[in-house]
Amino acid sequence: MAEYLAPLDDIRFALEGLVDLDGLTKLAPYTEIDADSIFGVLEEFGRLMTEVWAPTNQVGDEQTTRLVDGGVVVPDGFAEAYTAYAEAGWGAVPFDPAYGGGGFPWVVGIAMQEMLNSANMALAMAPLLTQGAIDALLHHGSEEQREVYLEKMVSGEWTGSMNLTEPDAGSDVGALRTKAVKQDDGSYRITGSKIFITWGEHEFTDNIIHLVLARTPDAPTGTKGISCFIVPKYLVNEDGTLGERNDVKVTSLEHKMGIRASATCSLSFGDDGEGAVGYLIGEENAGMRYMFTMMNNARLGVGVEGLGLAERSYQQAVAYAKERKQGFAPGAPRGEKSFIVDHPDVRRNLLTMRSIIEAMRAVSYLVAAQIDVAKHAADEAERTEAQEMVDLLIPLAKSWCTDEAERVTSIGIQVHGGMGFIEETGAAQHYRDAKITQIYEGTNGIQAMDLVGRKMPMRAGAVFTDQITRMRATVAELEGNDGLAVIRDELAKAVDAADATGQQLMADGLADPVVALSVATPFQRLFALTVAGWLMARQAQLASQRLAAGDGDAEALTQKLVSARFFARNVLPEVHGLVGPATSGKDDLAAATF
Amino acid sequence: MAEYLAPLDDIRFALEGLVDLDGLTKLAPYTEIDADSIFGVLEEFGRLMTEVWAPTNQVGDEQTTRLVDGGVVVPDGFAEAYTAYAEAGWGAVPFDPAYGGGGFPWVVGIAMQEMLNSANMALAMAPLLTQGAIDALLHHGSEEQREVYLEKMVSGEWTGSMNLTEPDAGSDVGALRTKAVKQDDGSYRITGSKIFITWGEHEFTDNIIHLVLARTPDAPTGTKGISCFIVPKYLVNEDGTLGERNDVKVTSLEHKMGIRASATCSLSFGDDGEGAVGYLIGEENAGMRYMFTMMNNARLGVGVEGLGLAERSYQQAVAYAKERKQGFAPGAPRGEKSFIVDHPDVRRNLLTMRSIIEAMRAVSYLVAAQIDVAKHAADEAERTEAQEMVDLLIPLAKSWCTDEAERVTSIGIQVHGGMGFIEETGAAQHYRDAKITQIYEGTNGIQAMDLVGRKMPMRAGAVFTDQITRMRATVAELEGNDGLAVIRDELAKAVDAADATGQQLMADGLADPVVALSVATPFQRLFALTVAGWLMARQAQLASQRLAAGDGDAEALTQKLVSARFFARNVLPEVHGLVGPATSGKDDLAAATF
Repeated sequence: MAEYLAPLDDIRFALEGLVDLDGLTKLAPYTEIDADSIFGVLEEFGRLMTEVWAPTNQVGDEQTTRLVDGGVVVPDGFAEAYTAYAEAGWGAVPFDPAYGGGGFPWVVGIAMQEMLNSANMALAMAPLLTQGAIDALLHHGSEEQREVYLEKMVSGEWTGSMNLTEPDAGSDVGALRTKAVKQDDGSYRITGSKIFITWGEHEFTDNIIHLVLARTPDAPTGTKGISCFIVPKYLVNEDGTLGERNDVKVTSLEHKMGIRASATCSLSFGDDGEGAVGYLIGEENAGMRYMFTMMNNARLGVGVEGLGLAERSYQQAVAYAKERKQGFAPGAPRGEKSFIVDHPDVRRNLLTMRSIIEAMRAVSYLVAAQIDVAKHAADEAERTEAQEMVDLLIPLAKSWCTDEAERVTSIGIQVHGGMGFIEETGAAQHYRDAKITQIYEGTNGIQAMDLVGRKMPMRAGAVFTDQITRMRATVAELEGNDGLAVIRDELAKAVDAADATGQQLMADGLADPVVALSVATPFQRLFALTVAGWLMARQAQLASQRLAAGDGDAEALTQKLVSARFFARNVLPEVHGLVGPATSGKDDLAAATF
Repeated sequence: MAEYLAPLDDIRFALEGLVDLDGLTKLAPYTEIDADSIFGVLEEFGRLMTEVWAPTNQVGDEQTTRLVDGGVVVPDGFAEAYTAYAEAGWGAVPFDPAYGGGGFPWVVGIAMQEMLNSANMALAMAPLLTQGAIDALLHHGSEEQREVYLEKMVSGEWTGSMNLTEPDAGSDVGALRTKAVKQDDGSYRITGSKIFITWGEHEFTDNIIHLVLARTPDAPTGTKGISCFIVPKYLVNEDGTLGERNDVKVTSLEHKMGIRASATCSLSFGDDGEGAVGYLIGEENAGMRYMFTMMNNARLGVGVEGLGLAERSYQQAVAYAKERKQGFAPGAPRGEKSFIVDHPDVRRNLLTMRSIIEAMRAVSYLVAAQIDVAKHAADEAERTEAQEMVDLLIPLAKSWCTDEAERVTSIGIQVHGGMGFIEETGAAQHYRDAKITQIYEGTNGIQAMDLVGRKMPMRAGAVFTDQITRMRATVAELEGNDGLAVIRDELAKAVDAADATGQQLMADGLADPVVALSVATPFQRLFALTVAGWLMARQAQLASQRLAAGDGDAEALTQKLVSARFFARNVLPEVHGLVGPATSGKDDLAAATF
């Protein structure tokens, strides 16, 4: 397997081009940070990923994480890699200094997530799920709960896990049946079973803080009767030391197609007695609401998993294409075998991968930066606009980045030819790993439901229209720049298509919601491609301005233009193939029998 | 894993709708066959596949085929399944009765291949590779060679293997280095190593006939210096009994992402002495030419692997969607959980799978039937037209059916949600298995090179234009049938796009071949989708005629119309997203640095 090198220049270009870093570092919590400190952090973090984490990725896939005598045994190097990460305090970077955090913007955390996922997605899920648990406790935990748990989770001393799914409650979380009964001391006793709990058990930290969704005895049915509990693996004494083992056990690990080194646990609560000890977060029956506050971060995080895998797959494909000789490329010296990177179709494969990855990065970072603005901008209108943009774009970022991860990692295999199908090559692992990202945190079909059912109707469609307006503004800015004419024209056509299909979908959906649900998936892709094309156009704009000003490495900037032009000509036009499907109505689906 | 049921009604509809069965059974070698005997054969064969073969598929993936003490150990049930197939004489069905064959048309063999691949693709490769070896011996072997080897291969008593690839000779076969030195008795001694040899070793038959490409000492370089040899695992005595073990050994098996139960062997020839004994087929240095005569069958066969996997994935997804309850579908009785098959987006997934599979079947069977016509039609012009059509459509059938197999099996996982990612569910296996079909027998990128470099230029573009004319004729026939207006309109638009981009590609390619090579992949897909749309329109035409005539099961025919309409509205329009990429030229690819 080829080395992974943190793509620091690409990350920097995306951050500078799409994120108002100066504006961001002027927001209240970030005033002590500047662009240099951000890039310094990323560079150092990238070194850890390249040197310590990345070499564990293929080993993990080969050895897998196994259940031995009731305990979870992790692959070689995993505990060491996690410890190196935790001890350097990397998990704390994007959190509030009040709880030991580094006080960096979320978008910096997202750039770090990209590298974590490139280096070893299976292991990355341990700190990333912990970030989700931290997020929930920060927003909804009591001051006491935060004191007891938060600092050790922020520091990485303990990890967190998210316990939602049960065998009959997957996409439909409201169907869950785990029980929570209140005790006289105010704590609860939790009984039930959860499945698909990532890193629900391991031994590379002293404790695991499970956040568990459950129902109290008189709770309403469905999502309105769900409460959220802290269930620590080891109870915490008043002095902060660890006490008794709580009654939560791993009963099995899943045997998965990908991310085979992550522990996907079935957990059983309260098998040995009256229940595992749990502590209510916030109020009873408000658990779903609390989950919703974490959902944007979690879904963006999954999109970034797609980005990380795609980047690693690309680096490996390029390395192979530059060292493998086969056949004769056009224009090659007579009788001399060519590196396959010189064959036009292989170049198309590599440039397809690269331009899509640049767009995935752009979409992810833009949304992350808007999360920061939505939280911290001084001006309320600015906060609202940013939050609306986040809400609208999250299903696109999740679904599009993960669908493209499948495509990019598939091409990554193709570039290797027959060797790509052999596991030792390592290209197949990225493809197998990527598949889960289209499924969890809401399948991409569920993202499409969210888009057409909840997001498009925001402010009676005006949030969507605002996004169209933003994209048209970029088209207008590109007028007169002849070097970017193709990019402008293709973007203009795509925006027209997105606007027309979006308006029709909303009109049809008002008359009959089933129509909107029937075309949700192709519309989601059409809209996402357009947003991606918009951000590629903005990156081209920046590259073109810098080239004209002699600001930066001319070859690197020229390559950004090549990527953007290729994207405009070869990736974005898929939009025009999606107009038909996105306006195809519900009749054929309704008429089908299976 | 769900059961597999041979889709006999769908197969029959495709055969009746696209193949002139009456015409076919009037061709010289098929006069003793009629449609009833064909469907009788398929029905009985389907039973074996459902009952004996299909249950071995997941077992095979779990156990894999392993190398133990230099011998290949196959999963439980494989030897028995192969024996049941061979003893019933199924392998003989599409071959010449002169060598023990059943004398059925190739298209019948292709329908059987579909079922073999649905039932167990990894095992299917043993008889299918044997068919390739039979094909080579039939066309190019001496009468003596045919007598010694052919009958036992046709009967399935022995299998065959194809030995082309070496570590530095994959896509570029001409680079191979295995040596063949002529002996005084006219035989040759073969030394060298081959990789990726499917079922190159196993013990479920008494002998294996390896066809091996090698070079004689003074052979020209490249593909012009390749000869083809018979290298039996056990030498055959004059009386037909088995003699000495030949010096060919399996040195390792590959550890693959999919088709994990097929033995993918590294073979070493001549390790223990002066070389393995081999017998020249035909003439020295003509080996590549002989391979070319088998190539159409082999490539079509790989497309059919994609079809088989897609069908099995679909059957499993439908079964799951009809038994899994989750959430509330629109219009469901209040408070009652819905089967997921009732959710519009799941219906879109299933109908996407189904309509694409029907199109894959149509493309595969049409090409197969043309192979029969090209061989056996009394009229030379008819033979030529059929052969041209086969040559033009083979790269489309191979690449499109396998790319769609990836898409369909991916959707198959999505329908299962999180369970799809768990190996025990069985959905993931089809997806892992499918990936190889895009790679071997020439990657799909190489198919695109073949299309634009060899096929489009046939008769100065007239073979392509003939295909456009055929498709326009269908558009014309659909005029006036209001029920099929959408199908006609979408087909007409797609044919216009295929015609225009194809003509531009040929014009550009004449001026600069690199332009044609640069856009070959998107053009190939555009053209293939159009051909698929054409055949779906023809099937709609047939269904509509039969419905009007009250000929056949009305519900089944109506569902064919639903599939065709959905395909026209939701699958075929991708063509319009491919016009841009197919006309994007070479500049961006040339400007990229990696």
